[in-house]
Amino acid sequence: MSEIDIFVFLYMDIFNFLLASLEVFIMEERVFNFSAGPSMLPLPVLQRAADELVVYPGAGMSVMEMSHRSPAYEAIIGEAETLLRKLMNIPENYKVLFLQGGASTQFAAVPLNLIGKTGKADYIVSGQFSGKAFKEAQKMGYDVKCVATSKEDNFTYIPEVTRDAFRPDASYVHICFNNTIYGTKYNYIPDTGDIPLVADMSSCIISEPVDVSKFGVIYAGAQKNMAPAGMTLVIVREDLLEYADPKMPTMLEWKTMAENGSMYNTPPCYTIYMAKLVYEWILSLGGLDVMKKMNEEKAALLYDYLDNQDYYIAPVKPQCRSLMNVTFVTGDAELDKKFASEAGKAGLKNLKGHRSVGGMRASIYNAMPKAGVEALIEFMKKFAAENPKA
Amino acid sequence: MSEIDIFVFLYMDIFNFLLASLEVFIMEERVFNFSAGPSMLPLPVLQRAADELVVYPGAGMSVMEMSHRSPAYEAIIGEAETLLRKLMNIPENYKVLFLQGGASTQFAAVPLNLIGKTGKADYIVSGQFSGKAFKEAQKMGYDVKCVATSKEDNFTYIPEVTRDAFRPDASYVHICFNNTIYGTKYNYIPDTGDIPLVADMSSCIISEPVDVSKFGVIYAGAQKNMAPAGMTLVIVREDLLEYADPKMPTMLEWKTMAENGSMYNTPPCYTIYMAKLVYEWILSLGGLDVMKKMNEEKAALLYDYLDNQDYYIAPVKPQCRSLMNVTFVTGDAELDKKFASEAGKAGLKNLKGHRSVGGMRASIYNAMPKAGVEALIEFMKKFAAENPKA
Repeated sequence: MSEIDIFVFLYMDIFNFLLASLEVFIMEERVFNFSAGPSMLPLPVLQRAADELVVYPGAGMSVMEMSHRSPAYEAIIGEAETLLRKLMNIPENYKVLFLQGGASTQFAAVPLNLIGKTGKADYIVSGQFSGKAFKEAQKMGYDVKCVATSKEDNFTYIPEVTRDAFRPDASYVHICFNNTIYGTKYNYIPDTGDIPLVADMSSCIISEPVDVSKFGVIYAGAQKNMAPAGMTLVIVREDLLEYADPKMPTMLEWKTMAENGSMYNTPPCYTIYMAKLVYEWILSLGGLDVMKKMNEEKAALLYDYLDNQDYYIAPVKPQCRSLMNVTFVTGDAELDKKFASEAGKAGLKNLKGHRSVGGMRASIYNAMPKAGVEALIEFMKKFAAENPKA
Repeated sequence: MSEIDIFVFLYMDIFNFLLASLEVFIMEERVFNFSAGPSMLPLPVLQRAADELVVYPGAGMSVMEMSHRSPAYEAIIGEAETLLRKLMNIPENYKVLFLQGGASTQFAAVPLNLIGKTGKADYIVSGQFSGKAFKEAQKMGYDVKCVATSKEDNFTYIPEVTRDAFRPDASYVHICFNNTIYGTKYNYIPDTGDIPLVADMSSCIISEPVDVSKFGVIYAGAQKNMAPAGMTLVIVREDLLEYADPKMPTMLEWKTMAENGSMYNTPPCYTIYMAKLVYEWILSLGGLDVMKKMNEEKAALLYDYLDNQDYYIAPVKPQCRSLMNVTFVTGDAELDKKFASEAGKAGLKNLKGHRSVGGMRASIYNAMPKAGVEALIEFMKKFAAENPKA
């Protein structure tokens, strides 16, 4: 042992004690962050990332510095896929891709990869992002049809759609499974028959179990429930890799990415490592069944409170309520503004609704502790008492 | 002050002392990483990132958790742009974009954004990545011409090209300014007259000053000299934002990204924060003039050694040598393999040449300390002495 080693060894006990104290201190400092995305990450994940940031154990370097072709990094990305497959129970005939560009890039990639089958695709527009996905395909010149929308009711519900709504020769049907902005969620999986169902799950991925085999493609930006921003997950059934437009940008081709294990070029290595830590954290808690129970409990606290008072209004139809994004308004734009501002000062951050909608939105993803929801409800009670409506 | 605050305050001195000891310990543990990308990051940057990872000062949350629309994050991305503009002396009529997808995505984005001007573009192919860029534009069905290449000499030099080489009606001329795989670099800026010059600078960006005004577009993946993988820098002259293909994927449109301050969707927030720390680090050392001097000094050490021995062969023509990627071979594939393996055991990692070329490659980006280059040369001497050629 070198002198430094001995020194560190001798002082490790007191050092660990002080470190633990600092962690308590850090806990004190942290706020409850209700941001819709990027959003809260589990504290144990952040602490582990901080511990390993300068030197990843055994590697002599940071994960940020690793060649993506190195055995150390290949173990990390391989483990990320293995853990996600376990977590989501992904069937073997589905490829798992870790890409870049966010869900917004997939709005273009979906038709570029899939519409070649028949030249047509159908969309359900239940919120802003599914609307963007539809418009993107339209802009690119494809024959796409909006088969159902809840736009006329300000997206306060999810359209109920049966199999006969879809064009029989559609290459796919596109939906957004949870609408971050409006706080709605599908409570059923649309029956599309033989037509592949493509779902943007950015704001509900790994929040509860989902039967992957009912979907042709699932995609999701990482920055709500999986990792920091900068990684996009695509889960695609193998037989759907054959319809890509030959002239499309290679980087958007799922087949190319699948054949290269998401390493056709350098992947967003560190963000994938963070996702791996998040998958480990969920598995350590018991997996998606447990996560669902925790998320239902948190959401129930908030919805039960909303349903049993008359100061705040929850605009979403009860059967379409999201477990992840809970929207409410006071009915007075000035009070809404005051609410978000005062909540922020009380350590409850980012409760302002999306700029296109207004009101309030509490995003309570996997990493939001129950204590955060409880603190929010206490604040809501206090605010209602202190700010009577005119 | 709470009890915890007082406790932490009292013990801060001894804590800082122990922390400093631990940092020395960490230094001991770190290897010299010659990876071509992702590659070494400056140790002070990694340490600061680790310190701030769980709670960014004053924010109550990690940078990874910040809404990209929050004032705290807007300050970070704004500062990243300001620092980069200062560092590179970027003229006001250029937009700075922080995107995703790597340089490989730009291989498609360049023609999609620019070729609309005339429908034609010219390429110089001086290595693998400029070849890939050319092929991507070809695959997409565009009228592109390879006006010069050094392929016949295994890319050991950069073609010398004068203005008459280009088609007068080309929308742009594309080059790769530093060839990571072959270890070559332009020692001149091609004179393209009025035709915008587009340069992939992934492996030499911010390694030395460059006159941005000579280029129409400069783009670079972050993972060599700027940040971890997952961010792509695009610097584009404003008048070139008007030629985009109206049917192209919106996420690849520079104009859309420019109009939205790189936030049309969620940007790779944390990677941009890391880039900001790197820009700060370079400015704290004195900027790109100082960085150039340091890089020239490191490269000269290695090239001088290579020029004054006869065990290793440096295949690149001296006037085209890269400051960032230094390639050499023993002339014996078995010895090359042994070299990379034994160097790795000696704490000199990732010296194996690119899988398409073989031999050795030492990538000595900004963050590689001079001590790393010195250690490499010592190892090279020892290896040559211990492994005489048959």
